[in-house]
Amino acid sequence: MTMLTAYDIIMKKRRCSPLSDEEIRFMVNGFTEGVIPDSQMSALLMAICFNGMTEEETASLTLAMMESGEMLTPSKQLVRSCVDKHSTGGVGDKTTLIAAPICAACGLYVPKMSGRGLGHTGGTIDKLEAIPGMNTSLDYDKFIDVVRKAGFASAAQTGTLVPADKKIYALRNMTATVDSIPLISSSIMSKKLATGAEAIVLDVKTGDGAFMKTVSDSEKLARSMMSAAKALGRRCTAVITDMNKPLGKAVGNGIEVIEAAEALKGRCPADLYDVSVTLAAQMLMLGGAGEYEECVMLAKDAIESGKAFHALEKTVELQGGDKNALTDYSLLGVPKFSYEVRSSESGYISRISCEKTGILSMKLGAGRQNKDDPIDPTAGILFDKTVGDYAEKGSLLGTLYTSSECDLKAPGEEFAQLFSFSAEPPAVSSAVLKIISD
Amino acid sequence: MTMLTAYDIIMKKRRCSPLSDEEIRFMVNGFTEGVIPDSQMSALLMAICFNGMTEEETASLTLAMMESGEMLTPSKQLVRSCVDKHSTGGVGDKTTLIAAPICAACGLYVPKMSGRGLGHTGGTIDKLEAIPGMNTSLDYDKFIDVVRKAGFASAAQTGTLVPADKKIYALRNMTATVDSIPLISSSIMSKKLATGAEAIVLDVKTGDGAFMKTVSDSEKLARSMMSAAKALGRRCTAVITDMNKPLGKAVGNGIEVIEAAEALKGRCPADLYDVSVTLAAQMLMLGGAGEYEECVMLAKDAIESGKAFHALEKTVELQGGDKNALTDYSLLGVPKFSYEVRSSESGYISRISCEKTGILSMKLGAGRQNKDDPIDPTAGILFDKTVGDYAEKGSLLGTLYTSSECDLKAPGEEFAQLFSFSAEPPAVSSAVLKIISD
Repeated sequence: MTMLTAYDIIMKKRRCSPLSDEEIRFMVNGFTEGVIPDSQMSALLMAICFNGMTEEETASLTLAMMESGEMLTPSKQLVRSCVDKHSTGGVGDKTTLIAAPICAACGLYVPKMSGRGLGHTGGTIDKLEAIPGMNTSLDYDKFIDVVRKAGFASAAQTGTLVPADKKIYALRNMTATVDSIPLISSSIMSKKLATGAEAIVLDVKTGDGAFMKTVSDSEKLARSMMSAAKALGRRCTAVITDMNKPLGKAVGNGIEVIEAAEALKGRCPADLYDVSVTLAAQMLMLGGAGEYEECVMLAKDAIESGKAFHALEKTVELQGGDKNALTDYSLLGVPKFSYEVRSSESGYISRISCEKTGILSMKLGAGRQNKDDPIDPTAGILFDKTVGDYAEKGSLLGTLYTSSECDLKAPGEEFAQLFSFSAEPPAVSSAVLKIISD
Repeated sequence: MTMLTAYDIIMKKRRCSPLSDEEIRFMVNGFTEGVIPDSQMSALLMAICFNGMTEEETASLTLAMMESGEMLTPSKQLVRSCVDKHSTGGVGDKTTLIAAPICAACGLYVPKMSGRGLGHTGGTIDKLEAIPGMNTSLDYDKFIDVVRKAGFASAAQTGTLVPADKKIYALRNMTATVDSIPLISSSIMSKKLATGAEAIVLDVKTGDGAFMKTVSDSEKLARSMMSAAKALGRRCTAVITDMNKPLGKAVGNGIEVIEAAEALKGRCPADLYDVSVTLAAQMLMLGGAGEYEECVMLAKDAIESGKAFHALEKTVELQGGDKNALTDYSLLGVPKFSYEVRSSESGYISRISCEKTGILSMKLGAGRQNKDDPIDPTAGILFDKTVGDYAEKGSLLGTLYTSSECDLKAPGEEFAQLFSFSAEPPAVSSAVLKIISD
């Protein structure tokens, strides 16, 4: 038996040879325990950025990270099928607030651990906390109890899960090694798998507002995450969705809760409806509810019958939130300031810059630049028009909201700059770009 | 003016954009001062291993490192031309002990700071210390004084020179980022330039016993080092020499002093003679002694007249060494054990593994695996035959020496394994492969 050394393992990756499961565990465990210094781990991470990892290596990395801390097994306490979903992060992405209640209404369990927003992307926990009283810091027993009673619970991740990811992510964030498919994949999946997800639907966002800019990169990321799930015998499907414009018309926190509640009441922008129903149907299928077309019907029925909306109300109520806020939206808080932006020209809207929308929303107070920044739940952006719509000169493009004392003229100009116009109607394709289930 | 950040600089190099002089200085100075952590520097070093550096970047890196500590200016205290030489490290390389006295005998000054051996390569300081009384820890005034009186002085590098290189090298050694041409080049040249070398002849070793395995890589390294020297207005020439077999017939410390002394007395293996005379002639040319062919004649005359040998005696004497050891070799110490190895077959010697020779010599006690290991000055290898020679079965191939208590049977077998044989005489080319002077 040869003795492993960090030096040899870094050199092996530098020379583009695949690392063994043992070598990957040696690095992850050594680094998590503080035996392997930052310098060696960051050299390895940079070599991975250049030379990539095979699916086997990524699965080993994911599992080694997953096993670095506490591992939850909600399915052992819950009798029905448990299904999870994960989005790689986008702008205006409130699909969890729609798809999870649909699944709960159809009899699945969705025990969902979520993150907070960072930078230009939002987070489900921040959105839910716009509801007065809503508690997302549930202890594990309470979390399981809410799932059992409401079908869906949403809690913020606790600190004891996947310490390896916390340490590695902090290092990547310092050393310009964030954007690497195997590193993104292992970071996401180690957490998902540690929270006990038996079946996972991945929403891989693609385009200017997402980490992955092309469908081909998104597919690589999807396959990488799926293979890690499969290595543990978990079922996994990926849906690649468009993030070249914000999803739906609302971007923010309270404002996205409103759009989700409206969607569950049958009033939903087409792109948001397509993505939410597709994700819910994939979750239902993985949960054993039937063939895909049946699951799509089940999802649509859950909205039309009002059952999905009631499921969301129940979850909110059990987590201490005021469920009336899902109907009387003024209970979500009324922004102190609003600013309407009108079109300076006539034409079809051909494009809305997506990443810049997220950054503008963050500046209004709806997001955080640094991870401890406070959130203004009333802040955000409501689009009146979207890509493909015709805008007359002087017609309303959208409204900015905030409760911070500020002059909204400059943000208003930034907002107007998000739009591109064309004389002819642009081709508008479906927001669901690809489903990968094999 | 934009604010520099280590993150952006690492990302820039990762994306293969050349770094500015300001960015390189920001990293080198920040890291040397401890403001930029190991993790960020090692990520940058790994990105440099993958994406390389332009000649301008390498020159900036070299100069930033050079300026991180004390800088010497021997030429200001010395009236004659000062010329330095540097070898990238090889096996049996005692050329400094031959070329430097030649230059001193011809009227040049050679103020030479040298390193110690590490791994399979030897170091001039270790060799000189085999001479009883020889002091290589000279303070600067004494060093200059020896140069003034003998023309040539050899001292170990002091700790105040180029602290950036010390820190960066330690990191490279941990993170598998040693073998990168711009990093090797800047490490060597920052030290050479900080010791004040006005004119430098580089001996870039090539082949199985050297860091550079091909002439093409050696030429890249040579040009990279030369461009850093030129950026400071220093004259620089590179000689690419063969290291596919040990240079000369002796490998060790005392044993190499003997071979050098013999060479200066006119008894020298052809390969060692060619390399030493070429290096000396290049040094003489850079020092203004004439055209290349004249300088070759000067070098050969210095040997034949005995002046070069007397120059070496003078240096040894002025540095406290016993100059009689250059004639009565028993004063260098007599090894306690020796072991003769004879050929088990008849044939022409077609190859002698060079790196393995260096490792075997190290194991006998002539080198160090770790930088604080002690050296046995009597240990080493004396080849009786070299590449191109015909060996009868049973004839002597060479002798192993050591003063450590050990069974020399296994090393003897290792030694026999170094040789390859052929039925026909192999093509033997010159040990000087290329001279780069433009």
